[in-house]
Amino acid sequence: MAFVTNDNLTGLAVERWATAHSSRTAELMTALVRHLHAFTREVSLTEDEWAAAVEWLAAAGRISNDKRQEFILASDVLGLSTLVVQLNNHFSPQATPATVVGPFHIDGSPEVHFGADMSDGLPGIPLFLTGRVLDPDGRPLPDVVLDVWQADADGAYEAQLSDVDEAQLRAKYRTRADGTYCVRTVSPRGYAIPMDGPVGNLVSRTGISPYRPAHVHFLIDHPGHERLVTHLFRQGADYLDSDVVFGTKDELIVSFTERPAGKTPDDGIIDRPYLHAEFNFALQTTGAECTR
Amino acid sequence: MAFVTNDNLTGLAVERWATAHSSRTAELMTALVRHLHAFTREVSLTEDEWAAAVEWLAAAGRISNDKRQEFILASDVLGLSTLVVQLNNHFSPQATPATVVGPFHIDGSPEVHFGADMSDGLPGIPLFLTGRVLDPDGRPLPDVVLDVWQADADGAYEAQLSDVDEAQLRAKYRTRADGTYCVRTVSPRGYAIPMDGPVGNLVSRTGISPYRPAHVHFLIDHPGHERLVTHLFRQGADYLDSDVVFGTKDELIVSFTERPAGKTPDDGIIDRPYLHAEFNFALQTTGAECTR
Repeated sequence: MAFVTNDNLTGLAVERWATAHSSRTAELMTALVRHLHAFTREVSLTEDEWAAAVEWLAAAGRISNDKRQEFILASDVLGLSTLVVQLNNHFSPQATPATVVGPFHIDGSPEVHFGADMSDGLPGIPLFLTGRVLDPDGRPLPDVVLDVWQADADGAYEAQLSDVDEAQLRAKYRTRADGTYCVRTVSPRGYAIPMDGPVGNLVSRTGISPYRPAHVHFLIDHPGHERLVTHLFRQGADYLDSDVVFGTKDELIVSFTERPAGKTPDDGIIDRPYLHAEFNFALQTTGAECTR
Repeated sequence: MAFVTNDNLTGLAVERWATAHSSRTAELMTALVRHLHAFTREVSLTEDEWAAAVEWLAAAGRISNDKRQEFILASDVLGLSTLVVQLNNHFSPQATPATVVGPFHIDGSPEVHFGADMSDGLPGIPLFLTGRVLDPDGRPLPDVVLDVWQADADGAYEAQLSDVDEAQLRAKYRTRADGTYCVRTVSPRGYAIPMDGPVGNLVSRTGISPYRPAHVHFLIDHPGHERLVTHLFRQGADYLDSDVVFGTKDELIVSFTERPAGKTPDDGIIDRPYLHAEFNFALQTTGAECTR
């Protein structure tokens, strides 16, 4: 091998990583080398900037744990998470579109009954989310599990709180025989992404609004259907058009209608006014992908 | 703002990061967004690959500490560290070329006397490194500090060892009035980069040789001169032409000559054969850069 020069270095590095045993790994790593070198050359990265990047990456790793993943947040604010969602979810126009999973999903939420209150007494305006889960032909799907999670009134997810013993503002709901579901919670509020880590530090050095519009997360992974990770956003909420993680989609914005005290959507009784949003999730059959 | 689509997402993300308060940060971040998005689109990154990348980054952060920096190692094996060195050290052809700093430099090594043995009784063939530090006109520079470090006979740096109380195989030497320096150590050996972390895992999935050729590190930061971070490599050593971190340069390869027991280069006495390498470091005056 010739020793390295400015001119041959990128080619040598690409040659090396092309020796990966899996052809996909070779494809990924050689493309990564080319693009990272192109970036470095284009901006003439200085040694101080390189050292700062290395330190930034290490700090992001240090602050990450089983409940916080700073690299997901980094990917989110760079638009990469949404890009990956866009590239991988070629659902038909009839199907509910996917959006980012975000860094705060916790596995293993408890399954609760139709209409159960996952906010469990936390402050906030009661919110009922109801509707059906449908197959691509509009037929209701029974026994579908909806994994639901959201932030509290302070914008904090359970994953961000250290003093929570039980599942908070997250639960799994199952559709009934007629495909209907009913989630009871409190109305979500817009919130800022965590600004106390390396990602927040970077965002704070820009004019970027750190806020996300009010939303509730859903993950629906039903056999025979494409896994759907999505949100429902509140119509008219602040930050819908400046979502810091590029997650807002028109089709996911729903009206939260004010209802008086009295009968609830699950035929219960409530002693104060509440909000009600209706949304039908339309799943995509596995394998039946459609590029759009 | 329009909600995101495949087509407008990269442009929206670039627009956002262009709001950075410093124009250099804006330049860096918008270029980073463009290149990361181009990579992601080119390879059609899957959601599983994205998740694996996020986990890889977090693991690299977790294994990094004040003595180990996995992201430097990652940068090294991708050829990025050498690229940054190349882009930032436009020394004249007369000056000693720079190479990568590597992940194992420790600040604050003790200053020792001319000819002091920084190997301090560790096993290995004694090695004397001697020569002068010169200015660009070939005049010897007195009182220049050479910060020197290397791996032990097992290929481990002090930064990789948990049971070392005192500086091991690292020291600072000062040139005498005539610009001469004399380092006593043991002859370095080629070694594999640490393979027990995320970088090693990646390298092990390729045909890339994880070895570096035998070398000793030098850092010379002398007032009025460009900071020089470099290595000396042993002529004829294994792996010179396949250095895993792309660090080898012709000008940095020196002959390690065998000498009989008896007089040492610093006018001492040694009771066994040893190796002797001579090398003059030529510094570059600050600001007097020369593109090549």
